[in-house]
Amino acid sequence: MKVCRTVQELREATRVWRGKGESLGFVPTMGCLHRGHLSLVERSRRENDKTVVSIFVNPLQFGPKEDFSVYPRTEEEDRRVLEQGGADLLFLPRVEEIYPPGFQTYCEVTQLTKPLCGLTREGHFRGVTTVVLKLFNIVSPQRAYFGQKDAQQAIVLTRMVEDLALNINLRVCPILREQDGLALSSRNRYLSREEREQAPGLSRALGRAESLFLEGERGARVLRDAVREELGRLPLFTPEYVELVDLGTLLPVERVESKALLLLAGRLGRTRLIDNIVLGGTYVDLGTQE
Amino acid sequence: MKVCRTVQELREATRVWRGKGESLGFVPTMGCLHRGHLSLVERSRRENDKTVVSIFVNPLQFGPKEDFSVYPRTEEEDRRVLEQGGADLLFLPRVEEIYPPGFQTYCEVTQLTKPLCGLTREGHFRGVTTVVLKLFNIVSPQRAYFGQKDAQQAIVLTRMVEDLALNINLRVCPILREQDGLALSSRNRYLSREEREQAPGLSRALGRAESLFLEGERGARVLRDAVREELGRLPLFTPEYVELVDLGTLLPVERVESKALLLLAGRLGRTRLIDNIVLGGTYVDLGTQE
Repeated sequence: MKVCRTVQELREATRVWRGKGESLGFVPTMGCLHRGHLSLVERSRRENDKTVVSIFVNPLQFGPKEDFSVYPRTEEEDRRVLEQGGADLLFLPRVEEIYPPGFQTYCEVTQLTKPLCGLTREGHFRGVTTVVLKLFNIVSPQRAYFGQKDAQQAIVLTRMVEDLALNINLRVCPILREQDGLALSSRNRYLSREEREQAPGLSRALGRAESLFLEGERGARVLRDAVREELGRLPLFTPEYVELVDLGTLLPVERVESKALLLLAGRLGRTRLIDNIVLGGTYVDLGTQE
Repeated sequence: MKVCRTVQELREATRVWRGKGESLGFVPTMGCLHRGHLSLVERSRRENDKTVVSIFVNPLQFGPKEDFSVYPRTEEEDRRVLEQGGADLLFLPRVEEIYPPGFQTYCEVTQLTKPLCGLTREGHFRGVTTVVLKLFNIVSPQRAYFGQKDAQQAIVLTRMVEDLALNINLRVCPILREQDGLALSSRNRYLSREEREQAPGLSRALGRAESLFLEGERGARVLRDAVREELGRLPLFTPEYVELVDLGTLLPVERVESKALLLLAGRLGRTRLIDNIVLGGTYVDLGTQE
């Protein structure tokens, strides 16, 4: 696996592949890789000749009170894992390589970023769209891979790709979970033992709503209340939102017509966790169609 | 000359060229073409295998009180002129092709857009950067050509290209002028006979400062005052700004150290006109270096 730390190095390495007509898949990450990330790498390897992974803890997408400085960095382990996982190139830029002095250009998706996580994480999505756009420009992949766990992010980025006519297919891959249902996340390692014991309650709450949906329930209030009731049984969890929204607009629906996205966010102790499920559809509904 | 009206048509046409390894030059315009535009096409033809021109009157870069609805549209004449000028492809998208329903992604350069024209034309540069970024993504040129007349625009776009790591060389070409010195502009056709008679006073004012500069004057106040004095002789002209700024930051300088950009804007009757000159340098200083 080749490792590049500058834009120029990466461009030279990928130019060779492009010159041979090889297709490029891209998996942007913030490192601290788990099986969820690896599932994106595997999917990219199946669909492309070469797979590029980036690890960049993007300061722009963390709020001033968020965990940028303590976000886990596990570069050695990540490199080992990606080597085994068959990535062809790892892009590991320093912050100044992405944001040199005088940097002042931002990309913003204005509507889809307002509800849900946008309500509490000001500037977060602007940071995400800006860095992903820049990474897309650097790597120039045919396809890029994102996890369903960050469903709003996937929908925002899909909109960005369409609005800016980027010639990239954005593929969303299903959430990977621990055996007890907890969605894999780099932030899970912040959890204390007690918090970790309560953590499966989040996916259990979504599962409860899914069962009701499969039995025929379509009312948003009933479905959301089922989630909230289940979350209410977790003494250490403070919910931030439980919403049932349209997949296109991310605005609340009153009833599930064909499909809808059910999402939750909140704090387990001090750790912010999110999870979601597509009722009546799958993760595929969050990406672009080839 | 091929004419494309949709993104898909244009992608298919350019894919063939790219497949043969041909280089692409791109000249984005708002139509109503004059010799200034044609000089960009000529330069592009010299430096690239194929030249793409776009004509798109971009609603996003006009303020609510500006001249979007009356901006001159001369499509037939433009096509004839470009055909003769040797352009290979004309991209003529409709507004809905660039901004389909639900469009909500914007690109913004935050600092360089604040002074000068940014003070009075709110949202103008956001409109410019958004549409140019999208057009760049659609055309994927190696080189793009802009006129020095819109000097702030050229500097803002150069910053965007660098900040977002777009793999495009942005070339700035010199202002073309009428024999009496008036900078060519599609908006010159708004001028009444009386206004047109006073219009050369703008470039004469800049020329006055240039003479002082060439004689050794370096003080911003003296140079600006010379311009203002000359503009003061035009009864129909209402100045908006006369500024001497740093080429990198667009912030005012007190003295010209090596080079600086001298710009003016104002209304001749109801028509807004701009002009500028690089003291101690040339138009080349406004673009990216290959």
